Amino acid sequence: MKSELALVERIRRRAGRPRRLSLAIGDDCAIYTPAAGEELLFTTDMLIEDAHFRRGTHKAADVGYKTLARGLSDIAAMGGAPRFCLVSLALAEWTDERWVDGFYTGLLELARATGTELAGGDLARADKVMADIVVCGSAPAGTALRRGGAKPGDGIYVTGALGGSALGLESRRGMAWRKHLRPEPRLKAGAALREKWGATACMDLSDGLSIDLHRLCAESRVSAELDGDLPVYPGATVAQALHGGEDYELLFTLPAGVKAPRSIGGALLTRIGSIRRGNAGRIRIEGFELQPLGYDHFRKP
Amino acid sequence: MKSELALVERIRRRAGRPRRLSLAIGDDCAIYTPAAGEELLFTTDMLIEDAHFRRGTHKAADVGYKTLARGLSDIAAMGGAPRFCLVSLALAEWTDERWVDGFYTGLLELARATGTELAGGDLARADKVMADIVVCGSAPAGTALRRGGAKPGDGIYVTGALGGSALGLESRRGMAWRKHLRPEPRLKAGAALREKWGATACMDLSDGLSIDLHRLCAESRVSAELDGDLPVYPGATVAQALHGGEDYELLFTLPAGVKAPRSIGGALLTRIGSIRRGNAGRIRIEGFELQPLGYDHFRKP
Repeated sequence: MKSELALVERIRRRAGRPRRLSLAIGDDCAIYTPAAGEELLFTTDMLIEDAHFRRGTHKAADVGYKTLARGLSDIAAMGGAPRFCLVSLALAEWTDERWVDGFYTGLLELARATGTELAGGDLARADKVMADIVVCGSAPAGTALRRGGAKPGDGIYVTGALGGSALGLESRRGMAWRKHLRPEPRLKAGAALREKWGATACMDLSDGLSIDLHRLCAESRVSAELDGDLPVYPGATVAQALHGGEDYELLFTLPAGVKAPRSIGGALLTRIGSIRRGNAGRIRIEGFELQPLGYDHFRKP
Repeated sequence: MKSELALVERIRRRAGRPRRLSLAIGDDCAIYTPAAGEELLFTTDMLIEDAHFRRGTHKAADVGYKTLARGLSDIAAMGGAPRFCLVSLALAEWTDERWVDGFYTGLLELARATGTELAGGDLARADKVMADIVVCGSAPAGTALRRGGAKPGDGIYVTGALGGSALGLESRRGMAWRKHLRPEPRLKAGAALREKWGATACMDLSDGLSIDLHRLCAESRVSAELDGDLPVYPGATVAQALHGGEDYELLFTLPAGVKAPRSIGGALLTRIGSIRRGNAGRIRIEGFELQPLGYDHFRKP
């Protein structure tokens, strides 16, 4: 491995000239000069070897791609447009220059496709690879979509199909595995939900529908009744669709009167239920209570 | 350990109500609405168990404090005022609730003292503890201090004394050990250098004077001549003052004509040399060339 200075210089060259940033990699801080009337959205996500990926099955470029994709998914969930990101990368003994290059190839590929500039980061050594990303997005002031605005009577919707990532992780084959490795952040759908469709609440499905819908309802102080057809990913089980993590689809609510389109920003929409009054966070499905079983890093087995 | 939801709720309560942030912990993103005419500064830093701290010698509160202090030091280096931070924390098996509480006690203590709001973060499990922080600071647009503006003839200065952190790490005793554990980010000095003293370049001393001055000179495309008295920390060696890391003092340059004050923002100033033309990044001391030997994560031993 080269010296840190040489490595930073190499990443800086690959990131290209900053356009929206006044200053990017190479100083104590990166500088962003906000436009008038914008609010800035910030999210942070870790990707850790053996917790979120394995060196044997995940290529460096997939790890880089997914590190950014997870952050962008949070920006999409607020209806924001990505602006820039900062990436902290702890490298293990087994990583070589090719791995580092691959990581940034995957990350920068998605960054370019979504208009996200690489503003900076930190490099360190550790026993296992750990990537942490902060993504900054932008929306007109006061318009970002939050979790807490769902109202009784609102329809509950999801983009795409659910359970694909869990199926992919199990089978390691086909489109489901690809969906697990390279989830597509629903940036266009999120922006349209904010601009045109008046979504009352929105979040991304990172830990699984059952726990994420529970969170949305808890934050909105309402309950949910699942009464629509669940868009189960082809080949996935209903349990994977209900509880599987990392689908990175959007979960959102629209006011009762709104007739939702069939698709939005390239993603199919499915109405899966309705918001109900009271019992903050409770979810009912076919008369039973749905337990929030999605992924929780700290739950005791 | 409680569930992730309970842990996040607990951190959210301890962080208190957001004041400058429109939205803090608990949604997909935090929201900051910039004021007119401000530019925003962003920095990110990792603190990793067994690389940057050891569980046996560093209390949880010291780890939390230092995680934020390192980021704040970068904001100070640009002359910025801290606004908010995001903290990603990977917890090892050995950490319990008391450790997590202690970590946030140390972090929030410094956050309150410096006006830095906790905007959010991420939690995960890992083999070793890893904290990554992003700090956002603010300065009037176009005024942040950079590394690249040093001009031939400028005086080179440092705040405080050098080598204290390296001495503390070696001795684990007294004020030097405290300086290693709880470095004071030079926020007031940085702000004054930006507002009043027209510093041409500034950075914080995180890896050691020899490598950091090399970086400042390389970025400014100039060389340096060290000809003043080095402010060596009491008990430290000259080698520790020249090459020791983690002092988190400020290294800066002032135009030739400026008569620097004795102290600034509570920190003593010492003139240690002058900027010279050409040989970008080279440092001369008493006729010899000073090799940049400060800390580099990736240099081969």
